[in-house]
Amino acid sequence: MTTVFLAGVFGKMGRQVARMMAGEKDLTIVGGLAPEAKDKVAFPVFTSLAAINVSADVWVDFTLPQAARANAEYALNHGMNAVIGTSGLSADDQEALGVIAQGNEQSLLIVPNFAISAVLMMQFAAKAAKYFPDAEVVEAHHSDKLDAPSGTAKATAKLISEARTKKPVAPHQGAPARGEWLDDVPVHALRLPGYVAQEEVVFGAAGESLSIKQVSFDRSSFMAGVALAARQVDTLPVGLTVGLDALL
Amino acid sequence: MTTVFLAGVFGKMGRQVARMMAGEKDLTIVGGLAPEAKDKVAFPVFTSLAAINVSADVWVDFTLPQAARANAEYALNHGMNAVIGTSGLSADDQEALGVIAQGNEQSLLIVPNFAISAVLMMQFAAKAAKYFPDAEVVEAHHSDKLDAPSGTAKATAKLISEARTKKPVAPHQGAPARGEWLDDVPVHALRLPGYVAQEEVVFGAAGESLSIKQVSFDRSSFMAGVALAARQVDTLPVGLTVGLDALL
Amino acid sequence: MTTVFLAGVFGKMGRQVARMMAGEKDLTIVGGLAPEAKDKVAFPVFTSLAAINVSADVWVDFTLPQAARANAEYALNHGMNAVIGTSGLSADDQEALGVIAQGNEQSLLIVPNFAISAVLMMQFAAKAAKYFPDAEVVEAHHSDKLDAPSGTAKATAKLISEARTKKPVAPHQGAPARGEWLDDVPVHALRLPGYVAQEEVVFGAAGESLSIKQVSFDRSSFMAGVALAARQVDTLPVGLTVGLDALL
Amino acid sequence: MTTVFLAGVFGKMGRQVARMMAGEKDLTIVGGLAPEAKDKVAFPVFTSLAAINVSADVWVDFTLPQAARANAEYALNHGMNAVIGTSGLSADDQEALGVIAQGNEQSLLIVPNFAISAVLMMQFAAKAAKYFPDAEVVEAHHSDKLDAPSGTAKATAKLISEARTKKPVAPHQGAPARGEWLDDVPVHALRLPGYVAQEEVVFGAAGESLSIKQVSFDRSSFMAGVALAARQVDTLPVGLTVGLDALL
Repeated sequence: MTTVFLAGVFGKMGRQVARMMAGEKDLTIVGGLAPEAKDKVAFPVFTSLAAINVSADVWVDFTLPQAARANAEYALNHGMNAVIGTSGLSADDQEALGVIAQGNEQSLLIVPNFAISAVLMMQFAAKAAKYFPDAEVVEAHHSDKLDAPSGTAKATAKLISEARTKKPVAPHQGAPARGEWLDDVPVHALRLPGYVAQEEVVFGAAGESLSIKQVSFDRSSFMAGVALAARQVDTLPVGLTVGLDALL
Repeated sequence: MTTVFLAGVFGKMGRQVARMMAGEKDLTIVGGLAPEAKDKVAFPVFTSLAAINVSADVWVDFTLPQAARANAEYALNHGMNAVIGTSGLSADDQEALGVIAQGNEQSLLIVPNFAISAVLMMQFAAKAAKYFPDAEVVEAHHSDKLDAPSGTAKATAKLISEARTKKPVAPHQGAPARGEWLDDVPVHALRLPGYVAQEEVVFGAAGESLSIKQVSFDRSSFMAGVALAARQVDTLPVGLTVGLDALL
Repeated sequence: MTTVFLAGVFGKMGRQVARMMAGEKDLTIVGGLAPEAKDKVAFPVFTSLAAINVSADVWVDFTLPQAARANAEYALNHGMNAVIGTSGLSADDQEALGVIAQGNEQSLLIVPNFAISAVLMMQFAAKAAKYFPDAEVVEAHHSDKLDAPSGTAKATAKLISEARTKKPVAPHQGAPARGEWLDDVPVHALRLPGYVAQEEVVFGAAGESLSIKQVSFDRSSFMAGVALAARQVDTLPVGLTVGLDALL
Repeated sequence: MTTVFLAGVFGKMGRQVARMMAGEKDLTIVGGLAPEAKDKVAFPVFTSLAAINVSADVWVDFTLPQAARANAEYALNHGMNAVIGTSGLSADDQEALGVIAQGNEQSLLIVPNFAISAVLMMQFAAKAAKYFPDAEVVEAHHSDKLDAPSGTAKATAKLISEARTKKPVAPHQGAPARGEWLDDVPVHALRLPGYVAQEEVVFGAAGESLSIKQVSFDRSSFMAGVALAARQVDTLPVGLTVGLDALL
């Protein structure tokens, strides 16, 4: 049984995490944090760090970057491991929190992407790149997404580039249709109404190809990763770990 | 039964066309043209236009652009319809040959791509674009292909653009990962060893997507289109027609 | 401007249709039918056929099979064309309604699937089957879908079979992995959590392949088809038409 | 530098292996075996085991099952590691050869599939199955392939089944369209002209999917795996190893 303290109870992710954990026998939320106690929930909700009078095995944080640092500090100083799903923490904040975790002999896990399919895709892509240096990334998102390419696509290109043991044979050529070259990996971004979020890595070599594709249909895809992180953060080394990858 | 005169008997395409027609009961090659009579074949091979002493229903041409114009002129002036698979004829040559065909009341079919899957893909893409203005083209070829995007991808983007009845909603954004914008259709080109040639058109709209994908594994994919053209060129209007599309 | 009478105002589809039409300038709902007037809406809602005191260009029906027949009869007898999205009408009911439509010189359109991507996919598959007799259908749905294969997959197999001009070359073999053979077309059904609904038709021929794939992400994919049907049902011949296909 | 003895010099695979190794600086063929010395090659070709008067680091075997056992025995007894690409060796033969390898302190690698993309696909599928118990295998081959499903598909289903940590949620249902259930994994086999060989594993979970797809365009896809095996067989434990997986 793992006990959880949930920060960000009434946000979109927080609500979904509370619902999910209510259905898992080995995870129990023993308290939560929120700016105000909006709805009635099955555990006590505190409206400030100062008011908290319970402890837990793991602090799970889905708040805002300006709150997450103080939250994580509180957790690590009060005997809890921490899983931070809040995005936007600066590199400085991450490093500082790592030092605090180290000092308290706690494990701190910061997770940019909880979708297990995305994390596995990146892991597999890094492995395949050892044998197949020629690779391209094709991601597709709904037409409202303003940036291109996606953060996951950029991270994947970096992993491929680092894992390569040979140079790719396909030439750059400079044509705009060849996409954006990140770390010598062409990245293509499609923006289409109807689509949610998906990413594919395509490898080609003499006489064969290998492709790995991940599709996110909705936010529920993050829940398995959140449960995994809460259950296993205590198996990580003391200090800072970034990415769910460490648990897969 | 359709009789055929084959120009370019000993080229890569010519040899394959001869082999294919030998297996089709309703197509008979009655003569061929080649700079020199290399191998023994089942029909007479002439080494110049002046030497030809047979006629046929259809002249099928897989030669070189500098020869194809004179060849087609000969055919159209000697009572044959003509199917030209030779690539690289200038717009002027094509127009001039159309006039000659018209004058002789013959049908002239110039075919840039004999792969039926590619022609159908373009036809379907044009139809779908009437309902789904948001579309992107993704083509992948072997890493030796020097130009990007492919001619088929360019032609497809043009057809989509012409068929649209509304403006697409996805923004351009200018990011290089968004590909090359041809006629307001983003086109992405992948170059990977192992691949032969393939092209996909992806449409997105509220809550749904439609994609049409064509793969060419090898040159044998052109043969069904050549047979179709030889059999049905006589059903086309007198004068010039461009593209197998007219017969599908 | 097309005026619409909406039967089934407070069902899942009805609510979505009302919302969609409120956003289309050339479509106006002038009245609705529902067993009880649940919520306030922008048009009068009648709770029985007898109570209706407005008319419209088109009757749009998303109710239940036991109600839809009487509804359609009412509409056709009161000077309205009818678009029936209600599923489950028997062949007898459909035929009888066709006769009534004929007698009143009205157009009746019964639509099994409003997703334009699905209808285009079937249309394209039927066209491609003329040239490529070897085809297989692969559909994937969420794991809660109890029947397999889907109705769309069955309908697609039938269309392919009818359109073929040659026999396929791939042997049946009888192995269970070769799927269910409908009209001599192998059909494969995947059931996986996370998936919504998608269908692909794959054609293979010497040296090439062509595949057409449709994905439904959610119910919003039906709205463009409903709007199209309401706008253009009056362009159809008098009497019964089945399928959105006739308008694409 | 690794020296190689090649058995099966003039078979389809043997010829391709010889050509490949001629282009690799760190691999040298020092002798070969063939029933008769057909063509001139750059190394001595022996027509019987008794005639061989050279040795090498690795014996590479692409012959026939009835010859491969005696060949491997010879190699292992004469101080060579062995890589066996010949298919069809019985389980008894494999085990017996493992004992001989052990006795001679040599490494013996028997490889059912040299395509690195296929081996990685299986490895990735086994890993993903730990997190996503719901999985289906879809393979497609040319219409001349007589058995269904393919050996790779069967092996993949077995690996998925063994790696699962939970039961899948999708029901069997018994419908023929649901494919062949191997180790509780539905397997679907497509047979289409034009196709060479490809296999896809599709995973689904709440809100997401992951798919891994491998395509073999031609026999050249095996060469990278053969080179890898020849180079690294000496890093394997003494005795029998099955599958290239051990080196990836």
